[in-house]
Amino acid sequence: MTEDSYNMPEFFPEKQDIDQYLSGYADGEGCFCVSLNKSKRHKIGWEIRPSFSISQNRDRASVLELFKTYFRCGTIRPDRSDYTLKYEVRAIDELVENILPHFEKYPLLSSKQHEFERFAEVCRMIRCRKHLTKDGFQKILSIAKSINRSGNKKYLREKIKI
Amino acid sequence: MTEDSYNMPEFFPEKQDIDQYLSGYADGEGCFCVSLNKSKRHKIGWEIRPSFSISQNRDRASVLELFKTYFRCGTIRPDRSDYTLKYEVRAIDELVENILPHFEKYPLLSSKQHEFERFAEVCRMIRCRKHLTKDGFQKILSIAKSINRSGNKKYLREKIKI
Repeated sequence: MTEDSYNMPEFFPEKQDIDQYLSGYADGEGCFCVSLNKSKRHKIGWEIRPSFSISQNRDRASVLELFKTYFRCGTIRPDRSDYTLKYEVRAIDELVENILPHFEKYPLLSSKQHEFERFAEVCRMIRCRKHLTKDGFQKILSIAKSINRSGNKKYLREKIKI
Repeated sequence: MTEDSYNMPEFFPEKQDIDQYLSGYADGEGCFCVSLNKSKRHKIGWEIRPSFSISQNRDRASVLELFKTYFRCGTIRPDRSDYTLKYEVRAIDELVENILPHFEKYPLLSSKQHEFERFAEVCRMIRCRKHLTKDGFQKILSIAKSINRSGNKKYLREKIKI
């Protein structure tokens, strides 16, 4: 991103510091998730929904605004599961064009980096519409399971047939 | 810190990126805490213990090693309260000489920054042995309460008399 490509909140210390700062923050608090939901609208019977999100208590919402301003995409909304706010990017074009390049240039330094790499692969497969084929869907399903191992996802419990 | 003042783990992308990365990570996951414990060893009857800590699941311990290597102080140990590992710096000299200057040069960008500033004040008061006077102790107690509001600390529930 260039110097003037987004509005810099007043509390930014220096432009050049933000790139890595946000990667560090996301390494701790960010979530690269691929969820699957049954869908009659989709020919294959399932909707695949990758998302990048960060949740925070309301008193720390300024950090979420920082992400939204920096990435120039995503939404901030109350998380229905608790009393936090969630910054989330779901649109596949925004994920591929804004989110992935950032974390490829400024990688996570924990093991979460491996999750990110698999997440990036899923996003790019979807962008190329590979998720609409049986083979592509099965591959995405396999990657999604490896990303979301700790989650209590419905599609991890049941056998998905397409 | 200078370029060669610590051993750089292999997975560091570039030296200049780490400073802000760690601040970003700590903004999300770090804790600047001041705890008070009854103590017969201390004339005033209480031990004041400031600490900087970060907890993580065991599979992400590499980030804790990153902090320990970078700051050249602190310990990593199992957290008794759960199944995580905790990186912690308690020694007042290390807090004042290694931790505070870093976060003053590369500040947190969330409201946690205010907690850090109060934490820094407590650390420097202790370094100057002001905690040994009644006035100093009361001031630290007041600051500690404002930092640890969300915690379930014993000294927040009971009235401390000195």
